[in-house]
Amino acid sequence: KKDSAPQALSTFFLRLDVAFVIISCHVSRATMNEFELIELLTKEATSTSRDLSLGVGDDCAIIRCGERDLLITTDTLIEGIHFKLSFFDPHTLGQRMLNANISDIAAMGGTPRFFTVCVGLPSGFGIRRCRELYDGLYTAAKLFDMELIGGDTSASNQLMVTIAVVGECKPDTAIRRSGARPDDPLFLTGRVGEAALGLASLEQNLATPQTASFIERYRLPQPRVAVGQALLQCGLVTSMIDISDGLLADVGHLASLSNTGYEILAAVIPRHKDFELVASRLGFDPWQALLAGGDDYELAFTVDHHRLDAFEEFLARRASEPGLSITRIGTMVGNKECQRALRGDGSVVFVSSQGYDHLGDWRE
Amino acid sequence: KKDSAPQALSTFFLRLDVAFVIISCHVSRATMNEFELIELLTKEATSTSRDLSLGVGDDCAIIRCGERDLLITTDTLIEGIHFKLSFFDPHTLGQRMLNANISDIAAMGGTPRFFTVCVGLPSGFGIRRCRELYDGLYTAAKLFDMELIGGDTSASNQLMVTIAVVGECKPDTAIRRSGARPDDPLFLTGRVGEAALGLASLEQNLATPQTASFIERYRLPQPRVAVGQALLQCGLVTSMIDISDGLLADVGHLASLSNTGYEILAAVIPRHKDFELVASRLGFDPWQALLAGGDDYELAFTVDHHRLDAFEEFLARRASEPGLSITRIGTMVGNKECQRALRGDGSVVFVSSQGYDHLGDWRE
Repeated sequence: KKDSAPQALSTFFLRLDVAFVIISCHVSRATMNEFELIELLTKEATSTSRDLSLGVGDDCAIIRCGERDLLITTDTLIEGIHFKLSFFDPHTLGQRMLNANISDIAAMGGTPRFFTVCVGLPSGFGIRRCRELYDGLYTAAKLFDMELIGGDTSASNQLMVTIAVVGECKPDTAIRRSGARPDDPLFLTGRVGEAALGLASLEQNLATPQTASFIERYRLPQPRVAVGQALLQCGLVTSMIDISDGLLADVGHLASLSNTGYEILAAVIPRHKDFELVASRLGFDPWQALLAGGDDYELAFTVDHHRLDAFEEFLARRASEPGLSITRIGTMVGNKECQRALRGDGSVVFVSSQGYDHLGDWRE
Repeated sequence: KKDSAPQALSTFFLRLDVAFVIISCHVSRATMNEFELIELLTKEATSTSRDLSLGVGDDCAIIRCGERDLLITTDTLIEGIHFKLSFFDPHTLGQRMLNANISDIAAMGGTPRFFTVCVGLPSGFGIRRCRELYDGLYTAAKLFDMELIGGDTSASNQLMVTIAVVGECKPDTAIRRSGARPDDPLFLTGRVGEAALGLASLEQNLATPQTASFIERYRLPQPRVAVGQALLQCGLVTSMIDISDGLLADVGHLASLSNTGYEILAAVIPRHKDFELVASRLGFDPWQALLAGGDDYELAFTVDHHRLDAFEEFLARRASEPGLSITRIGTMVGNKECQRALRGDGSVVFVSSQGYDHLGDWRE
């Protein structure tokens, strides 16, 4: 149903881009992708209020509230579009849904605080599974000291869950997508591509010792709240985004909003030791998984290139503690047309799709 | 599909109760209604944060933010459950959806400020109608100086829209559902029951000069923001709720959360001059429409009975300006079991259903 995504990626549980990413759009065509439609629908959106620091177009909106800024993000997840029920027990599904929303707060360096949940329940989903889903939401919330503050329930044809998360940070400190400048180095937390292989393993029913951790990464991603907060506090990060749609797609959003291009050294992107093995077993192009697979919810961010020494000191201090690795994977460039990933030999990696389109075959 | 609602009320476009209304619940049964399920799902919800003034259980949650309180409310509206597409043009539908959410801010006396919109779009809904829907949202937003701050789009089987609204008021001034005390008089803004007759007119395809204004009230309800703000400012109102599910159902929520009962003098509830005529043409019990019809989005509120003189002065000052009527329709009573509406002769009006249940035939 997705125009150009390979079959292994065509059904999934994936966070939609919370914020409206504005890209160029041609209304005259009979079809549009998700981002074109969002651009069309939000072109009338203003952000003229004095207390609205940031409206549509980023991971979260930012509302000024005296001693702090509030971050607001919302996403809908629909059975059959974003996830297959058969790949999850309801408890894990609930945890996953909240984690995916929390990731948008992490992507600005904020602290998640409150959430709302609106659910549409198909007949037959049942009270027991519904309770387990909510138990999963509460489990995820407790890990981050979050509280449920509202929502509703309704009948529907498909299971669907809309979550909104309210987070916070100190005034004017949230890290936006739009702050990258040419020559800023590009970094990545942890590893990407494993969730895509995990999903493919579920779809191909391939359960091996090697695929177990990949499946776990797909089923229950961990939002990078602590590292996001540390990156905010260090004061050296110029832009940040979470990788939900795919590395190239999301770094592309960041680059577009920053009016820059990017060059990624694909060969240096860290990989699980079994990455190539599992990709090969699944008949999956490893570059595709690495660069276009989403769902890992790692953070990509840029650092002020004038202050790279200070950032390397930050990394060195951090290296003494156990935690998530941070890897430099590329550089932002002045040429906006340049959006590419290079192999070790300097050749450009071509991927057939940079990310997901949740409108699928939706047409005018 | 609704257990006991008459057919004329069984399909509709109706705001779900935003906040989680906590009522008694029996898990052992194989079926639950919407409110029982919500109670079950939210019993683990805490509200221990110092800056969370109010969590689940009211029209909005309240977050303390220095110089102001932020009010947050969210609702999902699903085609076939909450509304029939054939009863609306997309522009009116969009306006209606935002108005219904704004009403929850009005019900606390707040000022709406920002909103998010997540839409699920069935293939075939089309870009043109989608734009018209958003144009309707923007039209409603402009009337209240509101700004769109986020959301997403996705494919889905049914059209569904989840809106969250952020409003504000001065600290610790929001009017809650839970503040009514025994002997507090109960008031109502404007008139109720007309939207239910408007919906029935649409369902029975009855277009007459008499039904036009009722249909308009159903199609495009006006949230009572200005009167809600005035009621907050007068400082005499002890509790408030908006009438979306039906007068008895919503006053019942207010009474339950205030640990009181209520006695409504049904005969004094203001009625449109054509109310009985249209009800009769539709084969609709006028008491049923008046007391159990929802969708009017008027406000019901109670006033501190020790300060009724001051409130009457407020009403007298207000009467010199054109605007919405305010009518005393009853009194809160100490006996929690007492939830009744009386005819002029003192007999109790019986209605077959007090409101809506959006779970319908959803079962364990």
